[in-house]
Amino acid sequence: MTCRSRFIRSGWVGTSTPGTRLDGMCRWLAYSGSPVLLEELLYKPANSLVTQSRHSRLGVETTNGDGFGVGWYGTEATPGLFVSTEPAWNDRNLLDVSSQITAGRVFAHIRASTGSAVQQTNCHPFRYGRRLWMHNGLIAGFPVVRRELALAVDPSLYHRIEGSTDSEIFFFLALTFGLEEDPPAAVARAAGLVEAVGRNHGVVYPLQMTVATTDGETTWAFRYSSRGRSRSLFRSGDVMTLRLQYPDNPVLHGLSADTRLVVSEPLGDLHGAWLEVPESTCVVVRGGGERLLPFVPLAV
Amino acid sequence: MTCRSRFIRSGWVGTSTPGTRLDGMCRWLAYSGSPVLLEELLYKPANSLVTQSRHSRLGVETTNGDGFGVGWYGTEATPGLFVSTEPAWNDRNLLDVSSQITAGRVFAHIRASTGSAVQQTNCHPFRYGRRLWMHNGLIAGFPVVRRELALAVDPSLYHRIEGSTDSEIFFFLALTFGLEEDPPAAVARAAGLVEAVGRNHGVVYPLQMTVATTDGETTWAFRYSSRGRSRSLFRSGDVMTLRLQYPDNPVLHGLSADTRLVVSEPLGDLHGAWLEVPESTCVVVRGGGERLLPFVPLAV
Amino acid sequence: MTCRSRFIRSGWVGTSTPGTRLDGMCRWLAYSGSPVLLEELLYKPANSLVTQSRHSRLGVETTNGDGFGVGWYGTEATPGLFVSTEPAWNDRNLLDVSSQITAGRVFAHIRASTGSAVQQTNCHPFRYGRRLWMHNGLIAGFPVVRRELALAVDPSLYHRIEGSTDSEIFFFLALTFGLEEDPPAAVARAAGLVEAVGRNHGVVYPLQMTVATTDGETTWAFRYSSRGRSRSLFRSGDVMTLRLQYPDNPVLHGLSADTRLVVSEPLGDLHGAWLEVPESTCVVVRGGGERLLPFVPLAV
Amino acid sequence: MTCRSRFIRSGWVGTSTPGTRLDGMCRWLAYSGSPVLLEELLYKPANSLVTQSRHSRLGVETTNGDGFGVGWYGTEATPGLFVSTEPAWNDRNLLDVSSQITAGRVFAHIRASTGSAVQQTNCHPFRYGRRLWMHNGLIAGFPVVRRELALAVDPSLYHRIEGSTDSEIFFFLALTFGLEEDPPAAVARAAGLVEAVGRNHGVVYPLQMTVATTDGETTWAFRYSSRGRSRSLFRSGDVMTLRLQYPDNPVLHGLSADTRLVVSEPLGDLHGAWLEVPESTCVVVRGGGERLLPFVPLAV
Repeated sequence: MTCRSRFIRSGWVGTSTPGTRLDGMCRWLAYSGSPVLLEELLYKPANSLVTQSRHSRLGVETTNGDGFGVGWYGTEATPGLFVSTEPAWNDRNLLDVSSQITAGRVFAHIRASTGSAVQQTNCHPFRYGRRLWMHNGLIAGFPVVRRELALAVDPSLYHRIEGSTDSEIFFFLALTFGLEEDPPAAVARAAGLVEAVGRNHGVVYPLQMTVATTDGETTWAFRYSSRGRSRSLFRSGDVMTLRLQYPDNPVLHGLSADTRLVVSEPLGDLHGAWLEVPESTCVVVRGGGERLLPFVPLAV
Repeated sequence: MTCRSRFIRSGWVGTSTPGTRLDGMCRWLAYSGSPVLLEELLYKPANSLVTQSRHSRLGVETTNGDGFGVGWYGTEATPGLFVSTEPAWNDRNLLDVSSQITAGRVFAHIRASTGSAVQQTNCHPFRYGRRLWMHNGLIAGFPVVRRELALAVDPSLYHRIEGSTDSEIFFFLALTFGLEEDPPAAVARAAGLVEAVGRNHGVVYPLQMTVATTDGETTWAFRYSSRGRSRSLFRSGDVMTLRLQYPDNPVLHGLSADTRLVVSEPLGDLHGAWLEVPESTCVVVRGGGERLLPFVPLAV
Repeated sequence: MTCRSRFIRSGWVGTSTPGTRLDGMCRWLAYSGSPVLLEELLYKPANSLVTQSRHSRLGVETTNGDGFGVGWYGTEATPGLFVSTEPAWNDRNLLDVSSQITAGRVFAHIRASTGSAVQQTNCHPFRYGRRLWMHNGLIAGFPVVRRELALAVDPSLYHRIEGSTDSEIFFFLALTFGLEEDPPAAVARAAGLVEAVGRNHGVVYPLQMTVATTDGETTWAFRYSSRGRSRSLFRSGDVMTLRLQYPDNPVLHGLSADTRLVVSEPLGDLHGAWLEVPESTCVVVRGGGERLLPFVPLAV
Repeated sequence: MTCRSRFIRSGWVGTSTPGTRLDGMCRWLAYSGSPVLLEELLYKPANSLVTQSRHSRLGVETTNGDGFGVGWYGTEATPGLFVSTEPAWNDRNLLDVSSQITAGRVFAHIRASTGSAVQQTNCHPFRYGRRLWMHNGLIAGFPVVRRELALAVDPSLYHRIEGSTDSEIFFFLALTFGLEEDPPAAVARAAGLVEAVGRNHGVVYPLQMTVATTDGETTWAFRYSSRGRSRSLFRSGDVMTLRLQYPDNPVLHGLSADTRLVVSEPLGDLHGAWLEVPESTCVVVRGGGERLLPFVPLAV
């Protein structure tokens, strides 16, 4: 077989020019504000997440077909979760459920796997109690550092790990370092550990992340990378501002003043609507209030 | 909800510029010749089908993530079939099976659905006895003509229809019109019926097709469209020619002289290797022999 | 929810007489009354549908692992639908969605395939506009009569057929014969056609059915078979009666007086709670009212 | 194939003594000998694995519908693997692939989950290089001991863990303790560690196992439980003996003298064919030779 193998591999073929593939290029969205049907967020915008799952505009990796997830805070204490390994655009249950469920806080994520298995337990958002977590990016050299990071997870939490992704371990590290008490500090410590362990193993830029996490009342969104060249992150800005800028657009008056979106990629092109989140920043969204804090990993 | 719905639909958003989406842009490959591991055909070429399932070069619709199928003639009388609704690039069983099965005749297909359900019974190749069938293209206005075409299927075959695609009905029409006796004539009659029924219902260009079918010994490949602007189709040409052109490429000597490929899109860039199949043509591949016949739909 | 939950868990039943193995032994449940979390219906009862999907009590075919579906009338005009080809007991999304959605009218179905493909488009309930339909039983000799029955479907509806089951064709026949105007008459005509076509093809007992259909306000449930030996069907009887019989059971007071269940198999063992629906009967449930009508297929 | 097929269909069995319900009641089969179509092993026997997936005879838990896997040694260096989360009886690809692949060494497993996710990475057999591993049973108190056992896995292997089952960790422990050099000793050490860690955490009976592992040339099968009440395990005994006992059964002559099966449950009712493997035993099958060794966990 060697000969045939090499023939086809090198032959009939010529050279292939690899793209500037960005590993782990997922997409996510964190919504809070007026209760809204999930389908409004997932399917209706011109550059909706579901559209992005086929054709992302900001990434060289244009397809995010390796799974999907949505979490929402409805009428029950625990947030709902719907995750799927099908491409988002094909999941009829997701379409149907989205047209039936209204929520005032929604996390949604589409996944482009960087190699780990395509299975529901690897889909974001991850959930622990009332907490949700989703991540775009990667822990570099994960096969090398996975064990050491897993050992750093609180032993009482370890058995709750169900999948095999870097993102889930990152979540459990944040829980270990106090995500339920002080999210910015917990994420800073988890990021610090990831960087320290990575560098000990010779990884130059150990962490690439935009992360969103929530307890159902406040959303914390982070943009950071060891290299200082982080994945994109945008926030929706002030609905009031939009209303003033577009007095003739009645639909802008349908959402309450406290409605906010944080997204890895804008959902449309309305001028002035999207504000880029700076590097090394944590955005805290609570009600209509938004604060930007500097984000620096902390040595553990 | 109306207001929120319109808001998000028109707002935050601006205009979206729809691409020149080609409906039903699938990809397929028909191989015959030296027995080869399936993985050599599906994964190894630079622009392999699996690569195309993420990034097709010749189509505006770059993602074919709505299912996959491969049929092969192994040691048994009936061809084997492996179809999946997962994106081809994620299916570990396909990867594993492909690395274990050797066959001298292989059909493979990746699907981009135009709306019908993503389910195994809608995946190509379709099989009937020893016959395989796969199709890139569409029957225009299928919802309008579906019933009349289904009624034209031989009543003894009707109950074997399992899916909901135009491609499967097209296959059963060809079987009805004698695919097992005279494939070019049977496909011509099936195409003729599709055009007649379509035009009766006001469809201007009823048929767009590249089709491949085989009985395990001969492959017939068709390129045709009512409009005269058919999907691309290529044949591999003569392995001997390649050997003369590339005397220094030893791998070209690994495949037997009768090896042939017909593909909707070339698997690589080797100059002179791929010959475009002209419009309105049927390619007959039997052993190392290849004949090109004119293809014209026949009135039924 | 505690009270309703315990009510259903301990509740409602009677004795069961084991039947003989019948092909297509599905299970279904039609609920109307107090808005209830879906999980209360699907998971909480002692002999819940999900439990039945592993271990049915009334059938020799104890496993119904070939798919699942639930339809509900929530806040939107169109009923929601969640169907799955996974065994019900394994579907985490179903579990999660069920714990988030409250509805006052719910149809649920677990499937034991008799040979047709296990795919979402073959899962009950089927939906058309605001209508839902689910079926336990079979059209005997379906491969033989499928074509003739499909041709009898209103041509304007034919293209809406997505799957390959007898149950879906039966639904489209009922729609053809006026399901949206007069359900008992439409089902009687559809059943009459099924029997006539079957007998023309030499099938002695062409139809075996328990069927439930609803428009979101009224539920019609049918028990009939050509042989006069129909699958089991039970109704919950009067909640008021239960309250009088069990004055010490506080949970029976948690559901409104108009709550009704029609089920293919009782959900628990509470004596006297379940009334068997007689052969050849249509049960009409509207609000707290219930009427039993004789059901006889009509010649078309 | 007719002869082999009939042989297995009518063949090989004995009496079965129903056990009590045990968690994690999977079923498996380890075949070596004459090359055989996979379907002959998986589908044809009267009490085949696929039949067992619906109706096991020896377990109160009659449904094993939580996934399936088959590994085989074909023409390639690495064994092939096909795992699925669908119930085995519904997987059309498995049926098709099984009718196309011939192998002289086959491992097959059907899974009844005890709670961990139903995902391909939790399906047996597990593979590492040329090694396969499958397990019926459980590590008791796994959530409590999971972390400590995972830490005991060789750090260079840790990142290869993909799923969340006790069975996969057990495999990696055996690899850690030398499965590639001395399987009985490695499994004894892994079992010893499991028992020690379990007891440290207050688990009285930490291990329940029948395990099979192979390198493609020898199969080692183990029956053991901390309590001394292990899951059932049978071996096929001598084909020569069968031939003498049943001189009129021509099909028994179709398999070579070195054909052997080790199974968690007999595949049919042929008297005298199946020999129960005693408690605390390791069966070594190499060619036509079979040795029984005592098996005792070793302190690590």
